[in-house]
Amino acid sequence: MNAPQNPNVQSPIEIAQQLAKTFAETAAERDKRGGNPKTERDLIRQSGLLSLSIPKEFGGQGADWKTIFKTVQTIAQVDSSLAHVYGFHHLLIATVQLFSQKQQYQPWFEQSAKDNLFWGNTLNPLDKRTTAKQVAENEFVFHGDKSFCSGSMDSDILLCSGFNDEGKLLIGVIPTAREGVSFLGDWNNMGQRQTDSGTSHFEQVKIHKDELLLNPGPLSTPYSSLRPLIAQLIFVHLFLGVAEGAFEVAKETVQTQKAWSKSLAENAVNDPFTQKHFAEFYVQLESVRLLANKAIETLQWAWDIGADLTAEQRGQVSIAIATAKIAATNTSLYVTQNIFQVMGARATTAKLNIDRFWRNVRTQTLHDPIDYKFQEVGEWVLTGKVPDPSFYS
Amino acid sequence: MNAPQNPNVQSPIEIAQQLAKTFAETAAERDKRGGNPKTERDLIRQSGLLSLSIPKEFGGQGADWKTIFKTVQTIAQVDSSLAHVYGFHHLLIATVQLFSQKQQYQPWFEQSAKDNLFWGNTLNPLDKRTTAKQVAENEFVFHGDKSFCSGSMDSDILLCSGFNDEGKLLIGVIPTAREGVSFLGDWNNMGQRQTDSGTSHFEQVKIHKDELLLNPGPLSTPYSSLRPLIAQLIFVHLFLGVAEGAFEVAKETVQTQKAWSKSLAENAVNDPFTQKHFAEFYVQLESVRLLANKAIETLQWAWDIGADLTAEQRGQVSIAIATAKIAATNTSLYVTQNIFQVMGARATTAKLNIDRFWRNVRTQTLHDPIDYKFQEVGEWVLTGKVPDPSFYS
Amino acid sequence: MNAPQNPNVQSPIEIAQQLAKTFAETAAERDKRGGNPKTERDLIRQSGLLSLSIPKEFGGQGADWKTIFKTVQTIAQVDSSLAHVYGFHHLLIATVQLFSQKQQYQPWFEQSAKDNLFWGNTLNPLDKRTTAKQVAENEFVFHGDKSFCSGSMDSDILLCSGFNDEGKLLIGVIPTAREGVSFLGDWNNMGQRQTDSGTSHFEQVKIHKDELLLNPGPLSTPYSSLRPLIAQLIFVHLFLGVAEGAFEVAKETVQTQKAWSKSLAENAVNDPFTQKHFAEFYVQLESVRLLANKAIETLQWAWDIGADLTAEQRGQVSIAIATAKIAATNTSLYVTQNIFQVMGARATTAKLNIDRFWRNVRTQTLHDPIDYKFQEVGEWVLTGKVPDPSFYS
Amino acid sequence: MNAPQNPNVQSPIEIAQQLAKTFAETAAERDKRGGNPKTERDLIRQSGLLSLSIPKEFGGQGADWKTIFKTVQTIAQVDSSLAHVYGFHHLLIATVQLFSQKQQYQPWFEQSAKDNLFWGNTLNPLDKRTTAKQVAENEFVFHGDKSFCSGSMDSDILLCSGFNDEGKLLIGVIPTAREGVSFLGDWNNMGQRQTDSGTSHFEQVKIHKDELLLNPGPLSTPYSSLRPLIAQLIFVHLFLGVAEGAFEVAKETVQTQKAWSKSLAENAVNDPFTQKHFAEFYVQLESVRLLANKAIETLQWAWDIGADLTAEQRGQVSIAIATAKIAATNTSLYVTQNIFQVMGARATTAKLNIDRFWRNVRTQTLHDPIDYKFQEVGEWVLTGKVPDPSFYS
Repeated sequence: MNAPQNPNVQSPIEIAQQLAKTFAETAAERDKRGGNPKTERDLIRQSGLLSLSIPKEFGGQGADWKTIFKTVQTIAQVDSSLAHVYGFHHLLIATVQLFSQKQQYQPWFEQSAKDNLFWGNTLNPLDKRTTAKQVAENEFVFHGDKSFCSGSMDSDILLCSGFNDEGKLLIGVIPTAREGVSFLGDWNNMGQRQTDSGTSHFEQVKIHKDELLLNPGPLSTPYSSLRPLIAQLIFVHLFLGVAEGAFEVAKETVQTQKAWSKSLAENAVNDPFTQKHFAEFYVQLESVRLLANKAIETLQWAWDIGADLTAEQRGQVSIAIATAKIAATNTSLYVTQNIFQVMGARATTAKLNIDRFWRNVRTQTLHDPIDYKFQEVGEWVLTGKVPDPSFYS
Repeated sequence: MNAPQNPNVQSPIEIAQQLAKTFAETAAERDKRGGNPKTERDLIRQSGLLSLSIPKEFGGQGADWKTIFKTVQTIAQVDSSLAHVYGFHHLLIATVQLFSQKQQYQPWFEQSAKDNLFWGNTLNPLDKRTTAKQVAENEFVFHGDKSFCSGSMDSDILLCSGFNDEGKLLIGVIPTAREGVSFLGDWNNMGQRQTDSGTSHFEQVKIHKDELLLNPGPLSTPYSSLRPLIAQLIFVHLFLGVAEGAFEVAKETVQTQKAWSKSLAENAVNDPFTQKHFAEFYVQLESVRLLANKAIETLQWAWDIGADLTAEQRGQVSIAIATAKIAATNTSLYVTQNIFQVMGARATTAKLNIDRFWRNVRTQTLHDPIDYKFQEVGEWVLTGKVPDPSFYS
Repeated sequence: MNAPQNPNVQSPIEIAQQLAKTFAETAAERDKRGGNPKTERDLIRQSGLLSLSIPKEFGGQGADWKTIFKTVQTIAQVDSSLAHVYGFHHLLIATVQLFSQKQQYQPWFEQSAKDNLFWGNTLNPLDKRTTAKQVAENEFVFHGDKSFCSGSMDSDILLCSGFNDEGKLLIGVIPTAREGVSFLGDWNNMGQRQTDSGTSHFEQVKIHKDELLLNPGPLSTPYSSLRPLIAQLIFVHLFLGVAEGAFEVAKETVQTQKAWSKSLAENAVNDPFTQKHFAEFYVQLESVRLLANKAIETLQWAWDIGADLTAEQRGQVSIAIATAKIAATNTSLYVTQNIFQVMGARATTAKLNIDRFWRNVRTQTLHDPIDYKFQEVGEWVLTGKVPDPSFYS
Repeated sequence: MNAPQNPNVQSPIEIAQQLAKTFAETAAERDKRGGNPKTERDLIRQSGLLSLSIPKEFGGQGADWKTIFKTVQTIAQVDSSLAHVYGFHHLLIATVQLFSQKQQYQPWFEQSAKDNLFWGNTLNPLDKRTTAKQVAENEFVFHGDKSFCSGSMDSDILLCSGFNDEGKLLIGVIPTAREGVSFLGDWNNMGQRQTDSGTSHFEQVKIHKDELLLNPGPLSTPYSSLRPLIAQLIFVHLFLGVAEGAFEVAKETVQTQKAWSKSLAENAVNDPFTQKHFAEFYVQLESVRLLANKAIETLQWAWDIGADLTAEQRGQVSIAIATAKIAATNTSLYVTQNIFQVMGARATTAKLNIDRFWRNVRTQTLHDPIDYKFQEVGEWVLTGKVPDPSFYS
């Protein structure tokens, strides 16, 4: 049902699949090790995928959102840590477009496209320890710690943030190598273990006013408020990709097994209970794939509207993404937990490290409480009120 | 996001909505009464919707499957009995196209389009009591009873079936008024109460060979085997429509209620538990809508391929529809049961008859066991084997 | 594992089983009819079971709570309307013990035991339309309507209630035949159709001060506040009984069926999916049976403590019963909905009226929102705070 | 509601609680490390709990099954690896009683009671690599590998097994120090990481005929077939204990948290969604506790009957335990997965290692497929047939 592709040029999806194939070889082992996946990050740099989200006029590929999210999902099928930091790179590119003006971000984008720069994140609006002080008309100093800074280590450009004396959030873009910036390397959690989501430290870091995203600034308009929705949709594709990866592992495992001794079937693939489990996985995955696609379409529509986007239109995007996120959360937990039921005890060997699928989604699905995604959707259904923009909705 | 419609011409969906509005006024009362909804069936005849599925060359509207299924869904939102017999009318039109040749069905279609004939069904392949005997070179006699004949009463044309001495299923098309055809009017079940799904009786009914669908005949090719899949997809849209109708009733009810005395909110629409229930309904409904749409697209693709359809391609349609059916079954039961949880005790008054939503889907979801749809999908996932065509898959 | 019974004397459970056997013959038909089950109510009177809850000193049987609830459950297996009004009779006997003093209720109990009087209920504290005016030192007049008065019609003694000018709830006990008392017979709901839970009307009904339960009065002490908990535990046994009755019908139906054509088994009892469904039913039912038993034990312990019961001890009863109610609610809905899945389409015939099981529990489980039972239990788990006594917790 | 205890003597439960308190301090860290928990195993030896299951006549404590299982559950609340090998110790003591005669096991029991010997397990009937050859009238040689040998390392006495030429399973009891016995220390799985459930190797190990359990031998009678049921009931208490431990951690965590910014409540303990989650946990846990108790009672009843136990009576035990196991499996997975939902992202830090609860039950619940426990219970419900005894049912 798809149009034929030019066989001589690799599509972004194909490139992502190739990366995924490489990452898969070491994913189980790297998950145990944790830490910074420098080698794999460099492979991403070399793949050219980092410029997907950069508009063509700045030397990028100007890909649509569907392409970008599908590359995230493809990588997540084998390695959700890399998919996370890779997805966040594109989120940060979008953030700059949403929070600032073309003349400001043009040089960053041109350099990023030319040199395959990897963007990193130290923007956690719930952690208010980093202060932003104006020390001169055009100079600011950021100082303090910031937690949950996924993808900050080994990045080339850094989105950083601090609160000024009035409690306003200021966001800047600086070279990661800027003096005073350091990373504690203290991320050691049960999942998403190679996302470097630890603490960054800003020691009296000087930031020029031109490096601050002040016009229109964070979440200042319905359009700029698309930013957290893009983050949420990255999570949806992480969850979906992980669930698909787990599903594949389970399928391949079961295909070589005998059925349990009391089964009416000889082989596991013909065991009625096993078949029903896989059908349950499939139906849920298929639902999430369609909800994710619809969410992408809605986002793309809003993205294309641009600065004229109304609060109501932005609300539609919010609901479409919240809907997909609820389903993706439930499905990814369901699949990654229940694949063991069909694979049996031998699948628990640490060598295979199959529990990483569950650990990864169980960790990442806690970014913000899914109960309040339900709450938002339910309130909208009953009252028509769309969610108030925030960094979490 | 949709293109503007010509405001002077009613689309089929708009016509279906208008019918639905009329049916809604009496649906609760008619459900209790049961029996044949003659008045409403005549409104369907007058609406012109019966010719949607008839190709334009025979005077019909040649609508695509999406349009047809959406009209079924729209009617099901208020009255799943009428949606059922209306949907089956289109199934029977399709059946004739799949089981016979153009020269045979041309006159039936032309007359149907001209006179808005309503097709009825007496095809239940599990009930083998009706015999089909060849009594002359071109003459057959059908004799015996047949159960579960939805939409047979008050029909104009009848698809009938019987088994010959060799156990082969013969299917014919005759005027419902043919001598010897009668209906026992014995349908009295807990749901789908106005579908007239009771017993038909054939008393030595003469059927000419030209009235039998012998070329290619039932389920004889992958293409002709699309027939049961269309039936299954009608069910999907019944279940979805009923769930949507129940959701609307619940929403309107809750919008006027106070929250329970112990709630942190004053009004029900702001109660966290109520909001979460509605979000759960919405996410499930949205999933089913998308799965149903994908199933329609797959069916339309296969339908357009025509007689060249391969078994593998037919299998893809089968899986897409089975997937949608599993989700639609679960969702429609979930929604129609749990709307009461949010509406409270006063919603149980017989006057409102809100339990009919549950009774209708609980009845119709039993057409064939959903466990074996899971089984088919699971087997396909694990082995690649598509379901063997039958009147149930 | 049980001690042998004296074969010559029927235990209360055996009497209830015998009643149930009789009620079962007409339950499906009476459910459709609705209205007052006078014949069956008289059979309950004649059975002697109405005096189970009356202490021996007043001529009753002084049965423990376990015996009383098990008779309710037994009747609910075939007829949850009769189980409801029968259970409420015992609730009203207990109410009088909890809200008043021995010298006041002694004559009522003696007469009730002697003549097998059936107590009825017009106590709905949410409906404030009935006023209670003091017109003389010892005389009050109750006037107005009261909804949801289960078991009021055809009762012999009536618990009635009204609000006085200060908004205080006054509860009285009068002969049902008292002048001015009438019943509108307007109960026509989707479930519990023979409970007569309609509107009662008090037309200037005179009530003597001695007939009011003023010492200690309603919910005035932890001990008197056991009353709503007894009501809740009656519901638990209704739900459990209905689910057990539905389970039995499903089991008997399936035992005679062939498996679906695609099953690996020949008979339905050997079909893996069918077996798993029944195991799910059984595990849930077994859980509810044990939770209900534990709740009874806790209630009996508190009942035996008497007036010294502390708020904390009363809270323990409340939590045990809320826990059982949550499980009983979920299980009864699950079982009564899903039995159809295993029985198939033929089980939907109106003649069998098997949907009444679902309609009955779906109706009665809405007495008060189960979400707030979850809320109470969760709050207690997290903070140690027991639910505040009210007519619903 | 419990009788007062003698304050001067620690009950077995109190001793287990004290052990649990000690184990809890290092459980998170030891889980990561894996390997053999020698220190903790010695603490168990010193606690005296190992003689609980040894009859008093041989110097043991002759505890009832309830006491034994509750000590297993108590330890499992903090460390399910130690609970596993501790529980299996008692299983092995029981195995010898069931598979052999008093004169044979008397010396083993007397020595075990006197010296607090820890029994270990190398009995995996699905792994047929260890052969048992009779080399003289009274001498056998066991040779080969055996997988999944929980608790074998650092044990004092070993239950070992091999298949003879006719495929018959022979089980022996030998000192773990017997020449030729070694352990590969190759257990490295995602859960139950300190159970040493790896491979044992028998290198031409000589076993005297007197050391073989031949009368009545394994699973030879209904009574001897209680053995696998005891194993299953140990698992039930593992799952329950782990779920209870996870529940406690979640409760303590939430009690100090603020509610999410969009909550109607200030503190997490008052958030409606959080409260409902905890109520769901509690209701499920309470159900499993009661089902487990009932299973223990049924087992104790059968155990006390002894050699006269009929197949039907043994079947009742089997069903009671299967019922408890289904609920315990579902509940332990549900609770250990969903506690994260209420605790939030910070609970994923590796330092706390809270995912070990899930990893432990996810691993151990795969001992044998829960689908076939459903199958057994469902078959029994529908046909009355009790499960055929095997090492898994």
